[in-house]
Amino acid sequence: MSVTIRLAAPDDYDRVITCLDSWWGGRQMARMLPRLFFTYFRPWTYVAVHDEEIVGFLAGFRSQTDPSQVYCHFIGVDPAWRGRGVGEALYQRLFVAAASQGCHEVLAVTAPTNHGSIAFHTRMGFALLTGPCVRSEVPFTPAYDGPGEDRVRFCRPLGGPAIHSPTFVD
Amino acid sequence: MSVTIRLAAPDDYDRVITCLDSWWGGRQMARMLPRLFFTYFRPWTYVAVHDEEIVGFLAGFRSQTDPSQVYCHFIGVDPAWRGRGVGEALYQRLFVAAASQGCHEVLAVTAPTNHGSIAFHTRMGFALLTGPCVRSEVPFTPAYDGPGEDRVRFCRPLGGPAIHSPTFVD
Repeated sequence: MSVTIRLAAPDDYDRVITCLDSWWGGRQMARMLPRLFFTYFRPWTYVAVHDEEIVGFLAGFRSQTDPSQVYCHFIGVDPAWRGRGVGEALYQRLFVAAASQGCHEVLAVTAPTNHGSIAFHTRMGFALLTGPCVRSEVPFTPAYDGPGEDRVRFCRPLGGPAIHSPTFVD
Repeated sequence: MSVTIRLAAPDDYDRVITCLDSWWGGRQMARMLPRLFFTYFRPWTYVAVHDEEIVGFLAGFRSQTDPSQVYCHFIGVDPAWRGRGVGEALYQRLFVAAASQGCHEVLAVTAPTNHGSIAFHTRMGFALLTGPCVRSEVPFTPAYDGPGEDRVRFCRPLGGPAIHSPTFVD
């Protein structure tokens, strides 16, 4: 069983968006991922494909405020495919693309209650940025994305350990 | 009474996001505008200010798939300030910035039920792009932004009539 990471095609959006809420355990996520991320940021948006089926995706972009930064807005993996390195392969693809364009760091946010995401980002080399609040040793910014939407902020420098680019995941 | 259009500062997000749902008549819009638009696309995100109060905003970005395109993700005006040219001034600022960067067109979408937005975009020189469905002579794409999220697509070429840049609105 192998998985290939490739640039997302515009039509991939229709396949991803219909899975999104179920991949997040029924949470209403679809409104947070309008089609624009697949249309206007193609160099930074990838899908993980097995047997022509999409089993994961990453929607990123390059900052237009500070072009040394790349931001990951969304990364998701089909629950049936978790624990097999799909998310790692998607992020490695982003790191390689960002480093090859001369970028210095990758940023992302997640909900402070999403312990799986915090552990995953830590494994991927992200540091948790400081915030005005701390709960269970996790720093976060309250209402970062609007009322009730607290967020942990992550930053992953692109210097340091060599970055490799896997194209297959066992 | 005058209104100034300026680049949005990162902190302006906190002021805008708390007004958003009420400016849209109670619709749940806040999840569609995460902070990233004010953080990472500053050259393309503006606020309209009167007496230090934000009375409108526009959140745009430049396409990283086709850098000749600029996209407007959100434009909103305080209901108390509608009909006074605030939205027009925000879009004119975007058009001037896009043209000065060598871009050729500005794109946007709206819900086909949002007749006010369709009329506004038409006044601003946007054409309605064709779509697979038509209702009340309005072409639209069903499920464009996910299940149940139909959208009308707009395109505004930047050639043609001269673009001026108002800084005040009476």
